[in-house]
Amino acid sequence: MFVGIEAGGTKFNCIIAENPEDILAEKRITTADPEYTIGETINFIRQTAALHHQTLQAVGIGSFGPLDLDPGSAGFGSITSSPKTAWKNFNIKKAFEKALELPTILDTDVNAAAYGEFLWGAGERKNQVLYLTIGTGIGGGMVLDGKPYHGLLHPEMGHIFLADISRNDSFKGICPYHGNCFEGLASGPALQAQWGIEASQLDEDHPAWEQEAQYIALALSSYICILSPEIIILGGGVMQQFHLFPLIRKKVQELLNGYLQTEMITKKIDMYIVPPGLGVKSGVLGALGLARLAIR
Amino acid sequence: MFVGIEAGGTKFNCIIAENPEDILAEKRITTADPEYTIGETINFIRQTAALHHQTLQAVGIGSFGPLDLDPGSAGFGSITSSPKTAWKNFNIKKAFEKALELPTILDTDVNAAAYGEFLWGAGERKNQVLYLTIGTGIGGGMVLDGKPYHGLLHPEMGHIFLADISRNDSFKGICPYHGNCFEGLASGPALQAQWGIEASQLDEDHPAWEQEAQYIALALSSYICILSPEIIILGGGVMQQFHLFPLIRKKVQELLNGYLQTEMITKKIDMYIVPPGLGVKSGVLGALGLARLAIR
Repeated sequence: MFVGIEAGGTKFNCIIAENPEDILAEKRITTADPEYTIGETINFIRQTAALHHQTLQAVGIGSFGPLDLDPGSAGFGSITSSPKTAWKNFNIKKAFEKALELPTILDTDVNAAAYGEFLWGAGERKNQVLYLTIGTGIGGGMVLDGKPYHGLLHPEMGHIFLADISRNDSFKGICPYHGNCFEGLASGPALQAQWGIEASQLDEDHPAWEQEAQYIALALSSYICILSPEIIILGGGVMQQFHLFPLIRKKVQELLNGYLQTEMITKKIDMYIVPPGLGVKSGVLGALGLARLAIR
Repeated sequence: MFVGIEAGGTKFNCIIAENPEDILAEKRITTADPEYTIGETINFIRQTAALHHQTLQAVGIGSFGPLDLDPGSAGFGSITSSPKTAWKNFNIKKAFEKALELPTILDTDVNAAAYGEFLWGAGERKNQVLYLTIGTGIGGGMVLDGKPYHGLLHPEMGHIFLADISRNDSFKGICPYHGNCFEGLASGPALQAQWGIEASQLDEDHPAWEQEAQYIALALSSYICILSPEIIILGGGVMQQFHLFPLIRKKVQELLNGYLQTEMITKKIDMYIVPPGLGVKSGVLGALGLARLAIR
């Protein structure tokens, strides 16, 4: 049995399972301060294991960030410059390792989701799986050749600047670092700031969605030119608006304008830009997958 | 002995060598039609081998493109939709394989350059090496974990759209597919189209350079957010203007605005955004490196 934890900004999703078909227990715990949230999560894990007489093998965590994922760094395993002050510089990897005495692997929430989709979802066994979450924030994770991708730091795909095609220039964006970067223009809170209505309450024919699809398509066109992924999976709260998918696909084709000669883009884009195969469970199941990597 | 061929749009550079310290012969051949250029290149290779009584082991080619690099495709090894009509759908890999009866590996010119820099240049043994050429066109290649990176197609990094910060709006760009994408705005021919003077003839204090540095910095900020490379190497004709480097570095720092907390960007950017360690030889030496991969 393994432990998968999706450590999100509003809640921790925790799962104890052998694999997605054989789930022992699941729990959601509110993200308050680390003492409460980590404490409750550990209690749940210990109690579940004891109750079912199960031995746990490893823990995988997909966490909000930014994270220090450099094994050579003193802060390896920490949440770094989070606006959540109680979590700033908190070593989430060490906290679980110490309490549970199990091998523990930490990655970004989006890398965990990409890995979940690679193992069991829409990106199953594809060479390059790009997963984006578009919700409270915007972030991207990647699995390349079966491995979650890291660079010098982890990617911060939500912070690219977008071209100005069809932009509403009166809206300056809400990213505290970059103003009108992708996240600053197109996250859930950015939609609310621009249109004065909570994103989930906007009608399907509201002009917000045409604009939103344009932002997302501009970002995807850059990801495609730079990464050339085999599949792009769009998750997160905003992408629960499934009517966005056809709009985004059409705009990506228009922006690339036939330059990239591959049927996946010119003809089969319905299979190229897709919702998560695991629904809202990509992250927590990906974390479970990471746990399995921890014992290799 | 190995053969490295940098197949460029204006010339083929060919090198026969064991490694960069032990070069047997080098030659430049004009890029005309395939019959002439491939014929001359093969003649040179055969004559050199015979003259020196050397046995050749493999051929590496870094070529202009776009290329078909999918081993499962019927056109594997071909130049695909090139504006050079004589080369369109020409199978450059097969041409050398057949004539020389040697294992032959083909990759993009920019992947070859990135690989050269990874083996022997500024990116030596780094985990993620990003190489950009900014010249007649703009393209990017990457070496990840020691291997040239491919995706669904190869990346086409020059074709991302740039944000409008400080743009001269009267210039619409020259890319036939995308107008004002990065290549459409910032390649050598784009500079000439915008300012009416050949790029190499523009004075160092011409406003073109401030604008050019802004375009390049905008593109680099996206590459950094998406790929998080360990080093960024800028080559190509336009980057022979070395005064661009400090301008670009400063603008990248301004654009990222302290969000990515790594000394490589905040303090050591002089070591992060750099000219090629191999000068103008990254491509041909990288092709030589690819040849060594061909016999693995």
